[in-house]
Amino acid sequence: MHRRDTRLDDYVDRYAARTHKMTASAIRALFAVANRPEVVSLAGGMPNITDLPLDVVGSILNKLVINSGRQAMQYSSGQGEPQMREAICEVMKLEGISAHPDDVTVTVGSQQGLDLVTRIFCDPGDVVLCEAPSYVGALGVFRASQCDVVHVAMDDHGLLPDALAEALAGLRAAGKRVKFLYCIPNFHNPAGISQTLERRTAILEVAEQADLLVVEDNPYGLLGFEGDPIPAMRALDADRVIYLGSFSKTFAPGFRVGWVLAPHAVREKLVLAQESATLCPPAFSQFAISAYLANHDWRGQIKIFREMYRDRRDAMLVGLADDMPAGTSWTVPGGGFFVWVTLPPGLDSHAMLPRAVTARVAYVPGTAFYADGFGSRHMRLSFCYPTPDRIREGTRRLGEVLQYETGILETFGTAEAEDIRARLPYEAPGANQT
Amino acid sequence: MHRRDTRLDDYVDRYAARTHKMTASAIRALFAVANRPEVVSLAGGMPNITDLPLDVVGSILNKLVINSGRQAMQYSSGQGEPQMREAICEVMKLEGISAHPDDVTVTVGSQQGLDLVTRIFCDPGDVVLCEAPSYVGALGVFRASQCDVVHVAMDDHGLLPDALAEALAGLRAAGKRVKFLYCIPNFHNPAGISQTLERRTAILEVAEQADLLVVEDNPYGLLGFEGDPIPAMRALDADRVIYLGSFSKTFAPGFRVGWVLAPHAVREKLVLAQESATLCPPAFSQFAISAYLANHDWRGQIKIFREMYRDRRDAMLVGLADDMPAGTSWTVPGGGFFVWVTLPPGLDSHAMLPRAVTARVAYVPGTAFYADGFGSRHMRLSFCYPTPDRIREGTRRLGEVLQYETGILETFGTAEAEDIRARLPYEAPGANQT
Repeated sequence: MHRRDTRLDDYVDRYAARTHKMTASAIRALFAVANRPEVVSLAGGMPNITDLPLDVVGSILNKLVINSGRQAMQYSSGQGEPQMREAICEVMKLEGISAHPDDVTVTVGSQQGLDLVTRIFCDPGDVVLCEAPSYVGALGVFRASQCDVVHVAMDDHGLLPDALAEALAGLRAAGKRVKFLYCIPNFHNPAGISQTLERRTAILEVAEQADLLVVEDNPYGLLGFEGDPIPAMRALDADRVIYLGSFSKTFAPGFRVGWVLAPHAVREKLVLAQESATLCPPAFSQFAISAYLANHDWRGQIKIFREMYRDRRDAMLVGLADDMPAGTSWTVPGGGFFVWVTLPPGLDSHAMLPRAVTARVAYVPGTAFYADGFGSRHMRLSFCYPTPDRIREGTRRLGEVLQYETGILETFGTAEAEDIRARLPYEAPGANQT
Repeated sequence: MHRRDTRLDDYVDRYAARTHKMTASAIRALFAVANRPEVVSLAGGMPNITDLPLDVVGSILNKLVINSGRQAMQYSSGQGEPQMREAICEVMKLEGISAHPDDVTVTVGSQQGLDLVTRIFCDPGDVVLCEAPSYVGALGVFRASQCDVVHVAMDDHGLLPDALAEALAGLRAAGKRVKFLYCIPNFHNPAGISQTLERRTAILEVAEQADLLVVEDNPYGLLGFEGDPIPAMRALDADRVIYLGSFSKTFAPGFRVGWVLAPHAVREKLVLAQESATLCPPAFSQFAISAYLANHDWRGQIKIFREMYRDRRDAMLVGLADDMPAGTSWTVPGGGFFVWVTLPPGLDSHAMLPRAVTARVAYVPGTAFYADGFGSRHMRLSFCYPTPDRIREGTRRLGEVLQYETGILETFGTAEAEDIRARLPYEAPGANQT
C-alpha cells in the first residue's frame, strides 16, 4: 500500500458499505479508564463466576481430555454435537419449552446466534423491531447488517402490544419490510423488567395477526430471584418464535456456547450459515459443558448464582434509595443483572459520564441502548460483577455526582449548566476519596 | 405460522437475498454414507490428532482451570487474549513473518477469519479472485456474501502471474470492483502444490501494480515434508497481504482458534466485526492453546505430525502409481493433506461419486472447488485421516472404479457411457469385498 499520510485509514475506499456502519463507540476509550481498579464499574455485564468450583471443573476437563480428547479436540458438525443439543433441550424444559435436539443449532455464544439469524433474514434496509431500550450488542448486529431499527415502547410489564401493532401498521403502510421483532422477555437488558405471561400472550397475538416472526433472546431466564420462571415465548408459539439461549450466565461465558432453537426450515439455513461462518462451533467447548452438566449439580450451581445476584440486586436497590437525589427513579428487577435509572429532567447521562468516571464510578449511558439517539436521561447500572460493598460505594459516588449535577442545574438552568461545565475545570465530588 | 402444506419451507419468502445463495451441497447426503466405517474416505480434511499426548493436555487444562479458571472462563476482548496474540507472533516467525501482537485478531478458526475479512471488504457483486481450483469453504463464504468469484489458472508452481494480470485488466475494463485475491500458497487445498518463492514475488508484483489486496490462507504452512518453510507472502509485503492462520492442523481443530494478521486500520475493522459476530472469541480455547504452547514441546509435536503425514502421503503416491489406469495424473504434494487427481478424458468425477461410494471409497469431486462448474475431470484425495493401510485399500478400490469407468468409456464412447450408466443397475467392482 502506498502510504498517504493525510489519511488515517489507507484502506477506507476498499471497504464494504456495511463496514462504514461499524464504528467504535465513543464511550469505548472511557471504559478503558473505567476498568481501573479504583473505579467502581456499574457498567459491565460480566457474570460473577467466582462461585464456580474450579477443582471440580478442572477434574472434569482432565477426565474429558483423557477419555474423549480425540473427539473433543476434533472438528464437529456445523449444527453442534448431538449430546450438547440434547442437554440444551433439558435446560430449556425449565422454562416450559418442549423441543427436539434436531431443531437446535449451537452457536458461539448467543451473540453469534443473533448474528446468524440476522444474516439469514435481513437485507440492507429491512426493518427490525426492538424494545425501547434494547440490548446494545443486538443493535450493533442490526447496524452491521444495515437494518433499520424501529423501537417500540415498553412499560413495567414489557413491550406494549398496542404500540407494536401501531408500529407494524405504520411501517407496512410505508412499504417497509419488517423482518422480525427482537425482544428480551426476562430481566431485560438494560431495562431490568420482565414481560408478564399475559403480556407475552398479547404480544404473540399481535405477531400472529401481522404474521411477524419473533426473536426471543433469553440469557437471564434462569436467574430469577423469586418464584418459578415464566414460560418462554417459544413455549407459547413454536412456529413463530426463534429462541436464543446461552450458557454464559448459568455456567461461564469463556466457552462461548449459545444456541438457536428455530423451526426446522430455518434451522437448516442456520446450519449452512454457521458452516460458512466458522465451519463448526468449538467441539471442545461443547464437550466441556456437556461433561459439566452431566457430572455436576448444575441446577444447584444456578441456585447459588441466583442467591448471589439477589444479594447484589438488594445492595443496589438500598444504595439507590439512600443515595439518589429527588426526581430519580429506577426499575426493580426480579432477576438478571441490570437496573435502569431515569434521571431528573435536564440531566444528560452521556454528557455526565466523564465526570462520573473522574468520581470513580462508571455506568452505561442510556443512549447506547437506542438506535435513534434517545436515552440521554437514562443509564444502565449493573449489579452482577462488583461485590455488595462495592455496589454501595458505587451508588454513593454516583449519588454525589448526581447531587452536584442537579445543583448546577437548579442554579443555572439547563443551557447555562452545560456552558459552565464546558468552561470550568470540573472536579467531581469525592474524587479525592479512597 | 399457518402451515402451507404445498411448501417445503414456510419461511422462504422471509429470507435475505444471501440466504438463497446458501444451499446444501448435493454431495452432502452422500457423505453421510461415506462416513460409514466400511467406506475408505479419502474425502475429508480432518487432521489426525491421535498422536497428541492426551495425558499431557489433560493435565495442562486441569492446572489451567485451577490456577486461572476465572479468567479463562470469563468474557475476553474482541481482539483476543494478549498472551495468545503474542504466542501467535512467535508461531508466525517460523515462516519469516515479523508482526506485532496488536495487529493480530483471534478468530473462531481461520474460517471465521475469512468470513470477517469478506464481510469487511465485500458488497454484493464485488469480485474475489481465486486460484483454479480453490478451497471449497472459501467459495462458500464468497457465495454467502454474494460475491462473484473469478478463477485464475495455476500450474505446478502456483497461481500464474500473467493470468492474474490479464484477469485484473479484463475485470477492471468491464467496470468490476475486484476486492482481493484469495490464495493458499502452501500445500494448496485442493491442488496439493506450493508457490515457489519466485512465484510469490511475481504475484505480489502484479498485485502491487494493480493495487490489489492479497488474502493469504496458510493452515498447512508448517506441515512441509522437506526442508524449511518458504517465506509467507505476508513476510514479503506487510501492507498488501492479509494473513490467515490456524492452530487446527498444528495442534487441534476442536478449540477453533485461528487468526488474522492485518494492517492496523483493517485490524480495527476486524475487531468491530468480531464483536458484532460473537462479542469475543472463546477465552477458554485461547488460554488452553497458550498453556499448551508454553508447557509442551509444540515444535516437536509438529515434527511428529509432519512425519506421520509424510508416511501417509507416500502411501497414497505409491497407491496411485500402482492402481490408477493409464491417462490419470496427479500432483505430488510437498506437505499438507491433499493430492489433486486429473482423470482420463471423458470421465466425470461428480457423476462417478455414487458408484465410488458403492465401491466403498469416497473422494471430493473437483467441481466442489470451482465456482463456475468446472472440475469434473478432477478429484481431491486426502491422505490426512486414514492410516497408510487404509489409504492403499482406498486407492485400490478407486483404481477398480476408474478401470471400470474407462472400460465403459472405451467400449461405448462418452455419451453412450453416460446413457448405459443411467439405464443399467450399476454394481461397482469390489462392492462385495470386505
